Amino acid sequence: MDAFSIGVDLGGTNLRVAAVDQEGTILESVDTLSDLGQGREAVVSRLVETISFLSRKFSTQRQYLGVGVGLPGIIDLQAGTIRAAANLPGWDGYAARGDLEAKLGTAVLLENDANCAALGEKWLGAGRDADDLCMITLGTGVGGGFVVNGMPWHGVMGMAGELGHMTVIAEGIGCACGNHGCLEQYASATAIHRMAAVAADADPSSCLARERSSDPELSAKSVFHCAQIDDAAAVEIFRTVGSALGIALANLINALNLPMYIIGGGVAQAWDLFSPAMFHELEERSIVFRAGAHEKRSHRSTEVRPALLQDKAGLLGAARLPMIACKSKCQHSLAV
Amino acid sequence: MDAFSIGVDLGGTNLRVAAVDQEGTILESVDTLSDLGQGREAVVSRLVETISFLSRKFSTQRQYLGVGVGLPGIIDLQAGTIRAAANLPGWDGYAARGDLEAKLGTAVLLENDANCAALGEKWLGAGRDADDLCMITLGTGVGGGFVVNGMPWHGVMGMAGELGHMTVIAEGIGCACGNHGCLEQYASATAIHRMAAVAADADPSSCLARERSSDPELSAKSVFHCAQIDDAAAVEIFRTVGSALGIALANLINALNLPMYIIGGGVAQAWDLFSPAMFHELEERSIVFRAGAHEKRSHRSTEVRPALLQDKAGLLGAARLPMIACKSKCQHSLAV
Repeated sequence: MDAFSIGVDLGGTNLRVAAVDQEGTILESVDTLSDLGQGREAVVSRLVETISFLSRKFSTQRQYLGVGVGLPGIIDLQAGTIRAAANLPGWDGYAARGDLEAKLGTAVLLENDANCAALGEKWLGAGRDADDLCMITLGTGVGGGFVVNGMPWHGVMGMAGELGHMTVIAEGIGCACGNHGCLEQYASATAIHRMAAVAADADPSSCLARERSSDPELSAKSVFHCAQIDDAAAVEIFRTVGSALGIALANLINALNLPMYIIGGGVAQAWDLFSPAMFHELEERSIVFRAGAHEKRSHRSTEVRPALLQDKAGLLGAARLPMIACKSKCQHSLAV
Repeated sequence: MDAFSIGVDLGGTNLRVAAVDQEGTILESVDTLSDLGQGREAVVSRLVETISFLSRKFSTQRQYLGVGVGLPGIIDLQAGTIRAAANLPGWDGYAARGDLEAKLGTAVLLENDANCAALGEKWLGAGRDADDLCMITLGTGVGGGFVVNGMPWHGVMGMAGELGHMTVIAEGIGCACGNHGCLEQYASATAIHRMAAVAADADPSSCLARERSSDPELSAKSVFHCAQIDDAAAVEIFRTVGSALGIALANLINALNLPMYIIGGGVAQAWDLFSPAMFHELEERSIVFRAGAHEKRSHRSTEVRPALLQDKAGLLGAARLPMIACKSKCQHSLAV
């Protein structure tokens, strides 16, 4: 009998729920706004309704494996609670697993959204060939997740993967986290916007200044357009993105020697613009990366690749959680 | 029946071989010079003789579990060969495992010396309470090793733990590895010597300049003496050591959220001199470290501790390898 699970990707803006089969095919998905302003109970109630709708629909012909929920927060996997979730106001301390299991009558697994994305790319995306990988997600902020021996790596507090707050410039730009020179200050969409605004101010006749008249926020997309027509300031911004990413990646590669590093998130669509500077830093800064290059495309080299699943990585990774739980004897090692 | 194994710590200068029981007691150890200048075959021949002598002696009353060999190089664990060992001239490519097993008639496990030290500290030293840990060794260079789920973490090429070549100052001092601003350029005994020589030149009446008259090499030990009597330049050198170490550690802590980080090697004896600057950086740079501090001594906080086993960590970790191999079903996952 075929089987399926339900994946949930709960973000600050969008809520996605999907029934997914064991090959990774999305049987049906429901995409709505998270509408967090309605309050937690209302959101949970809608979530439970949607999951029930999908699970009823497919469990007549297929074995139902349970629910995986990815959300942007630090999760206490042992207790099944949300320890802290800056983008889900009012959810801190919420005993999500117990509440959802009681309401749904089925097993629920919680996971950090960055880990879900890494797991999704490992299952169906750029990381299919690697049991161990690291994924860096370049969005409004910079997040990260690890998959080790095919399973998400949580760390002792469920806080592993805070890659956006790795120091790349020791005396660099201040970050809200309290540090200076965090990767997030150079490689996030927010950082691109900040650098572009400075460049537009400096040269009112530039492409960036012109873009600002139609896009006052000067989004990463506008900067991307300017860089594509070789605007020097915009090109330099993506060089900065790549360089910062290269420093952080070189540190990870030297420390961990994983076979695969995946760059995802919206900014990763500018891969062609930032990756040359990134690879330049890797060549200079990582003896492990260089040693891998000498292995000449063997399975032992270090691969750095763009993500493939775009905004579906987290949803698919969440759906994957119940499937892993059902077949792995090592599931207990997932708990913090 | 009690059991024992043989641990080997083969370094550029010293060769140590010991019979160790399952509680970690050294039953007998043989310490000699490595005498690498005699050539590889002569060294291997002496090694085989010493192992045979110890194994014969103890295997009458105890079960003999095999041999673990720690050495300073990159090991191909699958093939059992030494891929590269800069401090063992003529050993590159040597099929050590097969050769030693043929000569000894018993199972031999090879391991990188930094991983052995991490495993030793995990077994009997500062990391006893943690299943996952990272150890940074501050010696002539800076090395590193990880223990994950109680086992050494090798990475896909056996090159994990190159922590001395993590970038701490992006535009910092050049390193022989090709990078700039490597941790090793600020926190090794070699770096301490370099910084002390500059300070002694700058102020000929300083403590460091006086120490140089009796210790022309201006070893880390001499700098330690000056710092202990509050010589400003020497104090500043150890502050630099601590600061660089703090930046690298903050990155590791943010990325991995391991419960335990151990600082070992000769320089670690100056813990009281460098650790305040190190902890200052951790407080500033690591949101994960700060979150752990809030857990108030629970098992979920992040511990950073000095090593306890000094120069015996590697030897004991090597002896531990056959014991782990005998009881773990996960041994296959050790292979690259």
